[in-house]
Amino acid sequence: MSILAVGSLAFDTIKTPFGLVEKELGGSCTYFALSASYFTEVRVIGVVGEDFTAEHENVLKRRGVRLEGVERAPGKTFHWGGEYGENVNEAITKFTDLNVFQSFQPKIPKEFLDSKFLFLGNIQPTLQVDVRKQLGRDVVVAGDTMNYWINNTPGELAEALKIMDILLINDAEAKALGKATNLPRAALNVLAHGPRVLVIKHGEYGATVFFRDGAFGIGAQHPFRAPTLPIEEVKDPTGAGDSFAGGFFGYLASQGAVTRETLKRAMFYGGVMGSFAVEDFGTRRLQNICREEIDARFQLFRDLTHLD
Amino acid sequence: MSILAVGSLAFDTIKTPFGLVEKELGGSCTYFALSASYFTEVRVIGVVGEDFTAEHENVLKRRGVRLEGVERAPGKTFHWGGEYGENVNEAITKFTDLNVFQSFQPKIPKEFLDSKFLFLGNIQPTLQVDVRKQLGRDVVVAGDTMNYWINNTPGELAEALKIMDILLINDAEAKALGKATNLPRAALNVLAHGPRVLVIKHGEYGATVFFRDGAFGIGAQHPFRAPTLPIEEVKDPTGAGDSFAGGFFGYLASQGAVTRETLKRAMFYGGVMGSFAVEDFGTRRLQNICREEIDARFQLFRDLTHLD
Repeated sequence: MSILAVGSLAFDTIKTPFGLVEKELGGSCTYFALSASYFTEVRVIGVVGEDFTAEHENVLKRRGVRLEGVERAPGKTFHWGGEYGENVNEAITKFTDLNVFQSFQPKIPKEFLDSKFLFLGNIQPTLQVDVRKQLGRDVVVAGDTMNYWINNTPGELAEALKIMDILLINDAEAKALGKATNLPRAALNVLAHGPRVLVIKHGEYGATVFFRDGAFGIGAQHPFRAPTLPIEEVKDPTGAGDSFAGGFFGYLASQGAVTRETLKRAMFYGGVMGSFAVEDFGTRRLQNICREEIDARFQLFRDLTHLD
Repeated sequence: MSILAVGSLAFDTIKTPFGLVEKELGGSCTYFALSASYFTEVRVIGVVGEDFTAEHENVLKRRGVRLEGVERAPGKTFHWGGEYGENVNEAITKFTDLNVFQSFQPKIPKEFLDSKFLFLGNIQPTLQVDVRKQLGRDVVVAGDTMNYWINNTPGELAEALKIMDILLINDAEAKALGKATNLPRAALNVLAHGPRVLVIKHGEYGATVFFRDGAFGIGAQHPFRAPTLPIEEVKDPTGAGDSFAGGFFGYLASQGAVTRETLKRAMFYGGVMGSFAVEDFGTRRLQNICREEIDARFQLFRDLTHLD
């Protein structure tokens, strides 16, 4: 089934120990869409400025991503600048020029109203709720958020969490949102108030999915963890989390059903796509992966923790 | 096969958010020996003071641990004091009274000279080398070290690494020893100068084993990662790493052979024993585990990352 995804389309200026790129195509929704496009059709809701060219659009169109929901507004496209030092796990933000993204009001075109899988990228929680309301019932909703919303708009975020089936966040966000330094405890606290399924991303250590008791008609459930292969050369970690989300939700949508079994494989595909993303600057690697490479890496990740 | 283990027998005074214990039986060798005792016979080389009672000895003897190599010296037993805050991954050392451990000169009793599996606990690298020399050839040697030796006695440590087949250290130690912030790169650097096999412990995220190319007659080898189950209540993390080492090396010795396959299972047993250790203060939980509990947790850890 197709995925409807809302989030940022942007330009990134990124410096890492491996080099510098300026105004490179980026944004959470771009990474998500490219990554998910290897599994299913992705329909994007977003906004770009006048400096977003046909060439930028073509990067997404070549992967079959549908852009009818992308509004072109007067002004410039969202532009983020960041730098990574020796510790590639931490980005230092140099500037955040929201530009046309500042007044973004997501609207779902009629032809996308039949979408059954919705991904709410990291945008204002009130906008996330607003997008959800534009679709009917029986939609599987996955979403992202960040510390900014956790700290500054907790009330709005609480409302957004209620409409999500699956929340994907990282360790630090989970601890802040769940108000606990112990991760499983934080996970339980988050699950008590919002999503039925919580995916916590551990960066180079992989990711763990926690379940609310009774999720998917099953009783108490143990968490499930998918590893990532230790990577020697992380050229640019930007978008790794969004690419994880794309592989994860893309696989789920391609299966058309959310069960413990599809979620387990989705966790592995998330790790696989995240590991491709960091191999080159921006979305470059995500633009040209072949199916055989995805399958081979899936097998590698599986072997990484599998006993015979 | 039996394991010969050298390291500290100590008393620990520990404060965690769950309580305080004073002069509790501890020491790296104690944790290691109790943990490994569930898999094979352990013979200990160490030193204790006059305050180490028969009751303390019995904790080890009840698990079949052999103490003929433990010297009783005039004075007090090594006593460590530490505290854990909300972040249980970091101990704050309050005091380190080495006492009789300061002048420890390990001597292997004759009846232990046939040992084929040697564990060199975290002691002075020169003592590690000295112990190794007392045994003949064809011994599998695993060892531990810490940042203190990495920073202060790098030359002596380099000699000790050359006599180890397997080194077990944590993330921070691996990065310091391998002089790289990227973990797989640090691992390669460590493997180039010392052990054939490097186990890096990631605390709550499990552990990864890296292989030098050609180790065990096999060519280039991918790493292998064993997870740990996220634990909601870590009562006292003291000794988790030593307990990991005990489960890991105890299982290897019980199999009598170090191969990629036995190492993979050993990684899981390491995680299993580490997870038991933190459930109660000191070595309390390690004193009373039944085989069924170990098997059940092994299965739980396996299921944690296994696809069908």
